Amino acid sequence: MAPTITDVAATVVGNIENLVPLTSGQYTMGSLILMVSYGAHFAFILYFIMASLQVAPRYRIVPIMSAIVMASAGLSLMREFSLWEASFNFDGALYQPLSEGNVFTNAFRYGNWTITVPILLTQLPIAFALSRPDLHKRAFRMAIPAVLMIWTGLYGQFGETGDFARLNLWGVISTVFFVWMLIEVRGVISQAVKNSPPQLVAWPKNIWWYFLATWGIYPIAYALPQLGQTGDIVVVRQLLFSIADISTKLVYGIMLSRYVLRRSALEGY
Amino acid sequence: MAPTITDVAATVVGNIENLVPLTSGQYTMGSLILMVSYGAHFAFILYFIMASLQVAPRYRIVPIMSAIVMASAGLSLMREFSLWEASFNFDGALYQPLSEGNVFTNAFRYGNWTITVPILLTQLPIAFALSRPDLHKRAFRMAIPAVLMIWTGLYGQFGETGDFARLNLWGVISTVFFVWMLIEVRGVISQAVKNSPPQLVAWPKNIWWYFLATWGIYPIAYALPQLGQTGDIVVVRQLLFSIADISTKLVYGIMLSRYVLRRSALEGY
Amino acid sequence: MAPTITDVAATVVGNIENLVPLTSGQYTMGSLILMVSYGAHFAFILYFIMASLQVAPRYRIVPIMSAIVMASAGLSLMREFSLWEASFNFDGALYQPLSEGNVFTNAFRYGNWTITVPILLTQLPIAFALSRPDLHKRAFRMAIPAVLMIWTGLYGQFGETGDFARLNLWGVISTVFFVWMLIEVRGVISQAVKNSPPQLVAWPKNIWWYFLATWGIYPIAYALPQLGQTGDIVVVRQLLFSIADISTKLVYGIMLSRYVLRRSALEGY
Amino acid sequence: MAPTITDVAATVVGNIENLVPLTSGQYTMGSLILMVSYGAHFAFILYFIMASLQVAPRYRIVPIMSAIVMASAGLSLMREFSLWEASFNFDGALYQPLSEGNVFTNAFRYGNWTITVPILLTQLPIAFALSRPDLHKRAFRMAIPAVLMIWTGLYGQFGETGDFARLNLWGVISTVFFVWMLIEVRGVISQAVKNSPPQLVAWPKNIWWYFLATWGIYPIAYALPQLGQTGDIVVVRQLLFSIADISTKLVYGIMLSRYVLRRSALEGY
Amino acid sequence: MAPTITDVAATVVGNIENLVPLTSGQYTMGSLILMVSYGAHFAFILYFIMASLQVAPRYRIVPIMSAIVMASAGLSLMREFSLWEASFNFDGALYQPLSEGNVFTNAFRYGNWTITVPILLTQLPIAFALSRPDLHKRAFRMAIPAVLMIWTGLYGQFGETGDFARLNLWGVISTVFFVWMLIEVRGVISQAVKNSPPQLVAWPKNIWWYFLATWGIYPIAYALPQLGQTGDIVVVRQLLFSIADISTKLVYGIMLSRYVLRRSALEGY
Ligand SMILES: CC1=C(/C=C/C(C)=C/C=C/C(C)=C/C=O)C(C)(C)CCC1
Ligand SMILES: CC1=C(/C=C/C(C)=C/C=C/C(C)=C/C=O)C(C)(C)CCC1
Ligand SMILES: CC1=C(/C=C/C(C)=C/C=C/C(C)=C/C=O)C(C)(C)CCC1
Ligand SMILES: CC1=C(/C=C/C(C)=C/C=C/C(C)=C/C=O)C(C)(C)CCC1
Ligand SMILES: CC1=C(/C=C/C(C)=C/C=C/C(C)=C/C=O)C(C)(C)CCC1
Ligand code: NA
Ligand code: NA
Ligand code: NA
Ligand code: NA
Ligand code: NA
Ligand code: NA
Ligand code: NA
Ligand code: NA
Ligand code: NA
Ligand code: NA
Repeated sequence: MAPTITDVAATVVGNIENLVPLTSGQYTMGSLILMVSYGAHFAFILYFIMASLQVAPRYRIVPIMSAIVMASAGLSLMREFSLWEASFNFDGALYQPLSEGNVFTNAFRYGNWTITVPILLTQLPIAFALSRPDLHKRAFRMAIPAVLMIWTGLYGQFGETGDFARLNLWGVISTVFFVWMLIEVRGVISQAVKNSPPQLVAWPKNIWWYFLATWGIYPIAYALPQLGQTGDIVVVRQLLFSIADISTKLVYGIMLSRYVLRRSALEGY
Repeated sequence: MAPTITDVAATVVGNIENLVPLTSGQYTMGSLILMVSYGAHFAFILYFIMASLQVAPRYRIVPIMSAIVMASAGLSLMREFSLWEASFNFDGALYQPLSEGNVFTNAFRYGNWTITVPILLTQLPIAFALSRPDLHKRAFRMAIPAVLMIWTGLYGQFGETGDFARLNLWGVISTVFFVWMLIEVRGVISQAVKNSPPQLVAWPKNIWWYFLATWGIYPIAYALPQLGQTGDIVVVRQLLFSIADISTKLVYGIMLSRYVLRRSALEGY
Repeated sequence: MAPTITDVAATVVGNIENLVPLTSGQYTMGSLILMVSYGAHFAFILYFIMASLQVAPRYRIVPIMSAIVMASAGLSLMREFSLWEASFNFDGALYQPLSEGNVFTNAFRYGNWTITVPILLTQLPIAFALSRPDLHKRAFRMAIPAVLMIWTGLYGQFGETGDFARLNLWGVISTVFFVWMLIEVRGVISQAVKNSPPQLVAWPKNIWWYFLATWGIYPIAYALPQLGQTGDIVVVRQLLFSIADISTKLVYGIMLSRYVLRRSALEGY
Repeated sequence: MAPTITDVAATVVGNIENLVPLTSGQYTMGSLILMVSYGAHFAFILYFIMASLQVAPRYRIVPIMSAIVMASAGLSLMREFSLWEASFNFDGALYQPLSEGNVFTNAFRYGNWTITVPILLTQLPIAFALSRPDLHKRAFRMAIPAVLMIWTGLYGQFGETGDFARLNLWGVISTVFFVWMLIEVRGVISQAVKNSPPQLVAWPKNIWWYFLATWGIYPIAYALPQLGQTGDIVVVRQLLFSIADISTKLVYGIMLSRYVLRRSALEGY
Repeated sequence: MAPTITDVAATVVGNIENLVPLTSGQYTMGSLILMVSYGAHFAFILYFIMASLQVAPRYRIVPIMSAIVMASAGLSLMREFSLWEASFNFDGALYQPLSEGNVFTNAFRYGNWTITVPILLTQLPIAFALSRPDLHKRAFRMAIPAVLMIWTGLYGQFGETGDFARLNLWGVISTVFFVWMLIEVRGVISQAVKNSPPQLVAWPKNIWWYFLATWGIYPIAYALPQLGQTGDIVVVRQLLFSIADISTKLVYGIMLSRYVLRRSALEGY
């Protein structure tokens, strides 16, 4: 069957946000979610800067990396927020997606992950004090599948407005890279379990499970548009993204910072 | 009785600010209130950063948390301010709420509280030097009812433009969570009274009463729209919100910072 | 005589800036004055932060308070500047005040003073090393008439576009609070003269006269619109406000910072 | 001869930038010049802050003053840049100055100098370690002619769009103040030559010649519009201003910072 | 053959970005590339500031210079991003370059290089600890051909929309300066190989090859428009620019910072 005009338009507009009108409640909820996300990220820049002043020099870079991630993700989320505000217009009853000029897109998220994900992964071997050559090798081996995962996912997500074959095919490819990445992360965790001081040996294990649970939210958000193009799906997806963002960056950063603070103390700092 | 068009429109527009024209004086007063609020919050970021450099390391996080709250609430209030400015237009005699495109909403306040309230509550057990496991447990037990209080209130406040049953029902539910939260806070205060150095034992008690008086302003602001949809109500409500904001975040932060400064000195720092 | 349409409009628009067309020179001069003011305030944030690192810990808060005042007043003045730019439009010969949408107002100044004036007053007893309980009591006793002075003045200044009875009545009330505040300030100065090291005993006296001369500019700016609604009056008033702002906040802050720097040195820091 | 409409319009619009259409290359060059200028000023704030941490306490204020100048001039130049962008519109072939609403003006430059020039001059006696009472007296004696020079120049430059008598008369008056200021500067340099450590005695002399050469660019830029109202003149003037700005503030600041760094080392810091 | 209207227009609009409509995917990819670039630059300001606190004083300026470059390039790239967003409009099917008012230009990049390239080059002899007089001489000798390379390239790139003779002629001239600059850089590297501690002797050699590979991307991006005026060429060029920017500034800065950190340690800091 030849693609209809609507199919074409759908592919052009990229994300389902550009296809569904929202109720006032849904629109406000979406604004709210994005605003809370960027607000939280910006606010914790300060926390991580101060945290870096309290840990031993060799771990100082760990909270700094979190501060960098906060700044970068905060900017990106603030941009999503402005896009959201600019992409809908209130017609007196509903918020209509604007058909021209302003197009909402989630693609900036993937762009931002390209910066933040390698940083988040590199934090792990540094926090867990792997030896320097090992650290470089392992950071590299985690970053490669991670970036491939993001870029294949970025390519696939343009299919969400109708071309579900594209969405699913590239989703599966992306997941293969995700699994490869997880194997590498697991390797770092094993090292961490071996070399953690006995009082802290539960930490790398807990962080592993936490990591799995929170990074796993992203593929769910990716697949969600297949459930239908409704306002609720749009809002729930933004909510999932935001929960994932706060969990994998902000809370994860607090965990690692507290771990290195304890470890600094145990190492006599 | 079936809802009229006006009822529907009222629910859609969310807050009474979108329904009443303001006199020049009222409009200016509203701008002024919001601007003083965000200005004060931003300005005191600096104060709390400097304060953190003067207290013992274990208390350092207390003023830092205030700085984070200042930054986050300042951004949110600046946004309320811009919304206010964009949502009314001067027609030569009155400031008319704009019927399309720009809709004022207080919902961002609730979004922001979701970040700031858990931080404000967690400051208490840290400042009062509760032991670490106790601290975590209690912070958690305060934060849960607090977040439920905020979200139920957020849901209810959409009723303020006409659906007072919704406003009141969810207001009561929110108040139940508020009381639960207060019981948990009271528990922390009791611990604080026990473990404070004798010279400072009056502080936790005073902070308790101050806490009650200032947090109690929010439900009053919530209920206010039932008194009528007039410009005065709109302005008085923004004023109540602002007094509450400055009291529960800024002045409260100064109090806790001074307490930990004294306590640092008494503990020989 | 019943008020004419013009009288009504005049009250509505609040400040004389909204009534008089400006020549190109006057408009540019106004922009320039406001821009130099906010530029100077922002630029000196840095100065006061650095100054705070060079004085004894007990005085450190004095330059910090100046930095806070700089940030807060800078934001407010930048806002006056943008308002100015948005409130006039060049018609090819003159800058015409825009009749709708954008209304210039000086009210933000009063809003900002509500934050900055109590801070400026509290700097005095801290810089002059009054004992702690005395310090609190006196700061409080200065702040109360000060805030009443500002708010009564704010209410009165809406009369400047025609209702001079209002302007003058509330101006007099405000001046009563001003005098009360000055008596309290004088009390602090007397204490300061007593407890200053002999080498610095001239400082509190000089600061007193400086204080009188510079704070006294504000009531003159307040009364000025009675001399006529002309472009020159508009510009001269903004100039007076700016000279007063730079004198009572920035230069005053430098003076107090230098005083505490000297005093730190004499006290062996 | 009575002034024509065009003469009047010319005086109203203030600067030649509002009279000449620019080619695409000229417009881009102008944007580029202004953007490089403000970018350079902002970027070096950081440099001067770090520099201040490396010199002896008594000289610390010298790089701080440069940081303040960078911030202040950067803001002002960013404003010139935005004005430039807003004041021309591309008509498909040329960039036409907009006849209403947006008027380009160089007057902000003069406003900014009123803040920065006294700071730049005061840096000299501090860097060259003049004794304290001498320092104050000399800073004051340099600042007075400097400010008179700027304000008479500001008044005169409004003549550049046609009233060359005004431009030249006030240019000469301004130059008289410039010469007076230079005599005062020369006095400071002489003191500096006397009290510099022998290894550094060439520095004040070199700074003197550098000062003459770079401050001398401003009167050339001032006089330039007499050569004609063409796009090239417009661009060359902005270029001269920018070269002068970077030379008299940024590079000059680096020079003084390096001098006090060396001097700190020689004085055993 | 006389130039057609289209030829003229082409020269006027400066860059091929103003001539080709983009698909949604191409437009989004371009936005994404620019946004990731500026985000990465801004985020790493923090990294370099913290890095500077960990190296020996004589090398401290090296990461500071990277922080300055990050800030300056970040601003410039954010500007390219806004220009990109403002220069295309979605017509329902394609993103059309806007014919008036908003013209995209790469010229700001060249303006920014004029600030950043001399800083990047001067980092080399400082990091490699060349003796002071040698350092100055060599920094100067590298900066001269570099700036000539940039300015001749800037002039030439206006030819990319059709006047390929101009593009190529000035490209060759620029390349001559590039080669001259490389010879000077090679000289610094040779010195560095001689004076590096034995454990670090591989670093200057590796940096040399890295330098060649990454700076070499710019001339490729410059020449690219000759392959055709298509959306793909537009996007690939922005991608090349961004890869080059991140490689020659950010990653290069990390390399130099790590080198001086190691060297500080070996020199007993
Ligand atoms: C498996 C999978 C995905 C995984 C994405 C992940 C795991 C993203 C993590 C992002 C983080 C941690 C960002 C922090 O800034 C995609 C790309 C959605 C595509 C569908 C399949
Ligand atoms: C009881 C109650 C409420 C209480 C709100 C409170 C207590 C908010 C506190 C906010 C703070 C402290 C914010 C600081 O950033 C609501 C939700 C208005 C709904 C009505 C019932
Ligand atoms: C006496 C008097 C006044 C005094 C105002 C003063 C003294 C303001 C000081 C402001 C400062 C110091 C601000 C710094 O940020 C008013 C209110 C104009 C009203 C008329 C009578
Ligand atoms: C002699 C002369 C002038 C001199 C201006 C100068 C010397 C300005 C220096 C500015 C600086 C150093 C700014 C730094 O921020 C004017 C006013 C153009 C008017 C014409 C005559
Ligand atoms: C040889 C050559 C060029 C080289 C450009 C280079 C080498 C730029 C480097 C820029 C950097 C490193 C910027 C960092 O901020 C041009 C001008 C494109 C013109 C064509 C010939
Ligand atoms: Na909208
Ligand atoms: Na998506
Ligand atoms: Na408005
Ligand atoms: Na509400
Ligand atoms: Na205007
Ligand atoms: Na007024
Ligand atoms: Na323009
Ligand atoms: Na001029
Ligand atoms: Na666009
Ligand atoms: Na180009």
